[in-house]
Amino acid sequence: MEESFALVTVTEGIPNPWSFTFLPRGDVLITQRSGKLWRVEAASGRRSEVGGLPEIDAGGQGGLLDIVLHPGYSSNGWIYMSHVVSSSGGSSTAVSRARLDGNRLTDLERVFTADNAGSTTRHFGSRLVFDDEGYLYVSLGDRGESGRAQDLSDHAGTLLRLRDDGSIPGDNPYGAAFSYGHRNVQGMVFDPVSREVWAHEHGARGGDEVNIIKRGANYGWPRISYGRNYDGSRIGIGTAAPGMEQPLVYWDPSIAPSGMAVYTGDAFPSWKGDIFVGALAGQHLRRLVREGTRIVSQEVLLEKRVGRIRDVRQGPEGALCILTDERNGSLYRLEPPES
Amino acid sequence: MEESFALVTVTEGIPNPWSFTFLPRGDVLITQRSGKLWRVEAASGRRSEVGGLPEIDAGGQGGLLDIVLHPGYSSNGWIYMSHVVSSSGGSSTAVSRARLDGNRLTDLERVFTADNAGSTTRHFGSRLVFDDEGYLYVSLGDRGESGRAQDLSDHAGTLLRLRDDGSIPGDNPYGAAFSYGHRNVQGMVFDPVSREVWAHEHGARGGDEVNIIKRGANYGWPRISYGRNYDGSRIGIGTAAPGMEQPLVYWDPSIAPSGMAVYTGDAFPSWKGDIFVGALAGQHLRRLVREGTRIVSQEVLLEKRVGRIRDVRQGPEGALCILTDERNGSLYRLEPPES
Repeated sequence: MEESFALVTVTEGIPNPWSFTFLPRGDVLITQRSGKLWRVEAASGRRSEVGGLPEIDAGGQGGLLDIVLHPGYSSNGWIYMSHVVSSSGGSSTAVSRARLDGNRLTDLERVFTADNAGSTTRHFGSRLVFDDEGYLYVSLGDRGESGRAQDLSDHAGTLLRLRDDGSIPGDNPYGAAFSYGHRNVQGMVFDPVSREVWAHEHGARGGDEVNIIKRGANYGWPRISYGRNYDGSRIGIGTAAPGMEQPLVYWDPSIAPSGMAVYTGDAFPSWKGDIFVGALAGQHLRRLVREGTRIVSQEVLLEKRVGRIRDVRQGPEGALCILTDERNGSLYRLEPPES
Repeated sequence: MEESFALVTVTEGIPNPWSFTFLPRGDVLITQRSGKLWRVEAASGRRSEVGGLPEIDAGGQGGLLDIVLHPGYSSNGWIYMSHVVSSSGGSSTAVSRARLDGNRLTDLERVFTADNAGSTTRHFGSRLVFDDEGYLYVSLGDRGESGRAQDLSDHAGTLLRLRDDGSIPGDNPYGAAFSYGHRNVQGMVFDPVSREVWAHEHGARGGDEVNIIKRGANYGWPRISYGRNYDGSRIGIGTAAPGMEQPLVYWDPSIAPSGMAVYTGDAFPSWKGDIFVGALAGQHLRRLVREGTRIVSQEVLLEKRVGRIRDVRQGPEGALCILTDERNGSLYRLEPPES
């Protein structure tokens, strides 16, 4: 069934926003990649800057990136952010947490710094997701150096699983790393249906993938891929190999996916349980209709209507919210039309 | 490192034995496919028949198959068996449990009957494995009708996950079924390292596979396979497809795998954590050396020395035990040579 919706602008005019999260009373926090954090009041729509941020090494694809609340936020107040920091090897992806006191972060602490240093400013990841046992997953990328994704000697090209204090669970397969062979993961969710982490990643020319993240698994980059290098040459050894995971779906041509949400609200009944993915190059919101862990159909929404979509999350009252990229980034709410 | 070992015969002369399990004091129970259960005393080596078995429809590949102890055996005494029963559609795979009183099963109850009825006597599965949360996995096969493995409308070609009383956990993806696209799974373990269920399955001509079993996943048979049909024609659409799992390793030519164990003992230090697989057609014991969830090398042991191997389990004191098939089936213990 096709759902009709109203598209409401929540706030606009933020340069390259990257992520957002809703506080319990409906205020929203929005990260700006260049290193700002914004709070938009639900009641007034007024936007103000939040101070007390962690160190941020902004440039290229790096800066202040994801933001999520701890699952126990209502009692512990922790807000988690991923951000790029200067490191001896260039720059690395880090995770910090802090509490919010009005418009100021307090109790700031860096809980983890990934060992993914590199001198490029590309492929930092990074999304943050808590699962239902309280483990924190941190997506990363290959730092634009594809050979690092099959090499477990550092974190480039891996996806991490941590305790909420940044320590490493004893049952991880490879230290902090939980899976590997990833090119650049900019969308990740914990799926309450399968109780597993789902993620998508950018391919090169073609070959964007959606995967279920499994302990110890190898997602194949750059040994296997459904895409090609930008010069048209073949990548690795083909599209499949034993011991390497196949995606649930792939996109060729690339849509350049960013942001991911599982819709669990009641406002759009026919969307319940579906996966939503933002598209940068594709400039649309993509709905993946699933049965269990199979993607059975796809729908393209908002094509070329709002531009490049960087993030998608569910908001209060079952609204679906999207954040657009570019100089004049905006947060929109999709809600049922007034009857 | 190559381990040397002594090969000790525990008992011999059982026609087509299928599985075995050790009781806490070292006695061993051995199933005979045609419908007998044997108890061999650890101290004397004396073998006696156990009475009070469940219904068994023996014939072809069907009969009394796997046997395992409940993880809480020491307090609850439950022994689980898989066995083939007559059903309105021909024959089906069932799971029963009972307690053992001397040489007699008591408190016998059938906890589950799979909806995999068919008129062939092929591809019933069936191994039984408990995971560390107490869920019971039951492997099945496609009943020799390959089209059924991609069809979730019945249990043929699926792998089941149950509670210990045979009821269906609410978080299963497809009713009793946990994964699908399986041809015939005759080896399965719970791997304590990855905390996941590993299984192997028979290919057709080539294409035997080892897989990690994931919630909701599709293992591809007969849409994808590394094997060919017995007439040499191609199977399905090739070796890989999005949404279908790739094996960790495959064997072409087929070894016809049966039985599987993770070695956790101290008697053979260099085997610790390795996976052992029996081979019927291959007539050997195969050691899979793994790092986390990767198979990094393989070793063939006992090639053509004891015949077709139906099952492999770890025994008391870190011995590795194998059960051979055919008219004169035997149980052997591999133990360190006397120094």
